[in-house]
Amino acid sequence: MDLTQVSEWENGKVRRKEDYLAAEEPLEIRIGEEPLSVTMRTPGHDVELAAGFLFTEGLINKREQIVSLEDDLPGENRGNLVRAELATDAVPDMEKLRRNFFAASSCGICGKASIDSVRARTLSPPNPDFRLGAEVLLRLPDALRASQAVFGRTGGLHAAALFDAAGELLVLREDIGRHNAVDKVIGWALLEGRLPLSHAILLVSGRGGFEIIQKAIVAGLPIVASVSAPSGLAVQLAREMQLTLIGFLRERRFVIYAGDERITSAGVQ
Amino acid sequence: MDLTQVSEWENGKVRRKEDYLAAEEPLEIRIGEEPLSVTMRTPGHDVELAAGFLFTEGLINKREQIVSLEDDLPGENRGNLVRAELATDAVPDMEKLRRNFFAASSCGICGKASIDSVRARTLSPPNPDFRLGAEVLLRLPDALRASQAVFGRTGGLHAAALFDAAGELLVLREDIGRHNAVDKVIGWALLEGRLPLSHAILLVSGRGGFEIIQKAIVAGLPIVASVSAPSGLAVQLAREMQLTLIGFLRERRFVIYAGDERITSAGVQ
Repeated sequence: MDLTQVSEWENGKVRRKEDYLAAEEPLEIRIGEEPLSVTMRTPGHDVELAAGFLFTEGLINKREQIVSLEDDLPGENRGNLVRAELATDAVPDMEKLRRNFFAASSCGICGKASIDSVRARTLSPPNPDFRLGAEVLLRLPDALRASQAVFGRTGGLHAAALFDAAGELLVLREDIGRHNAVDKVIGWALLEGRLPLSHAILLVSGRGGFEIIQKAIVAGLPIVASVSAPSGLAVQLAREMQLTLIGFLRERRFVIYAGDERITSAGVQ
Repeated sequence: MDLTQVSEWENGKVRRKEDYLAAEEPLEIRIGEEPLSVTMRTPGHDVELAAGFLFTEGLINKREQIVSLEDDLPGENRGNLVRAELATDAVPDMEKLRRNFFAASSCGICGKASIDSVRARTLSPPNPDFRLGAEVLLRLPDALRASQAVFGRTGGLHAAALFDAAGELLVLREDIGRHNAVDKVIGWALLEGRLPLSHAILLVSGRGGFEIIQKAIVAGLPIVASVSAPSGLAVQLAREMQLTLIGFLRERRFVIYAGDERITSAGVQ
């Protein structure tokens, strides 16, 4: 977090005060010496972010394909660079990747150069037998907020968290970018040898968009919950892939957009 | 908007109901026949989005470099494709662009292949003489909400709006992506011949991040206001570029992170 001097205006009165700001810095990910991507992120857990990104974007399929992930490399981008060494079978054809990934997007399907490629990856539906009680689900947002150290101060960070079926928090990560927070928790799971996450729930603080669902499916997550609204395409993808998608998880209420069968004590009355 | 059947759980009771979802579909932008980018966006105002994207990402510097922008082209991506014909002096070297833009990012500086290039564009500070009264500023969020037709129904869209110094709404656009909403209003201004926006305020419904500030500077906007928190890097860039950055604009309060001098009746007491 950055601390800075700001002016607060309130009812016509202005005072100078110190304010905490969410840190945002570019992180470059390289495969060997080849630049792969630059993303604006909140520094911290950069190795997890890189691991999660490589995995959810399909550059690797398993932890064993990561030979090494180094941050804190010397040089001018110190602290803002992660270098990945990948196994020979995972090292991508950078020229082809460049062509396919070529995209300059805004919070979107970055890195997909054609519409047709968006759904091109072959993925399996997540664990059909996983069940979660509605009462457990209702407790998750409070558990997330209680663990969200930074948000209370800056109001500017997104959170992503993994919970088990008993509602126990497995990991929580915060980032100025929603997708980064998700990549960080999935990267954590990858590095911890916990993939696929076939018995876990992903809770995100923001909106459940198409790409969050896509990343969840890659990680094998059966349930994604959000405190806000999903998009139409996110719902469509969740239904196609038989993932359970929950929105507006607030107070004593939530909406099930897909995969009702995984939420127990929730039969239509 | 998409209408769909969902299950609403409330206090142990579940009912099936119809729900509106924010539409989210991929838009491909092509320069001639060359694919430039794919972004997930809310359909509507696609020509403005493409124009704003080309401009804020630096592919064009003025409206005259756009020979034509066509949507609704026949073919399989009908409705999700905009083709731009650019003047000869603006047509980029696609191979070089591909190399420089190569990035697969998450809500970040998509399309910048190295950290050093993030601040590489030479831009001038916005209008130093523009002034805005604090009372006008306080009215903007209500004006934005009153005009936000879709948000009330889906809860899932970001809004960006331009206002003049009297607080009159010039244009409002909504999108599932924050940056898209900003590109749409800037694209509108470009196509209307209103650039630079040296006498306007940009209000965004979400967070004021680095890229929003970057886009605002390209469009010559002197003031950016947000109802939420900016990031540290956004504040740093706003200060460097002498742009006025307002955060937490809610009720009778706001925080000035940069460029205090443009907000009148706000002297430190």
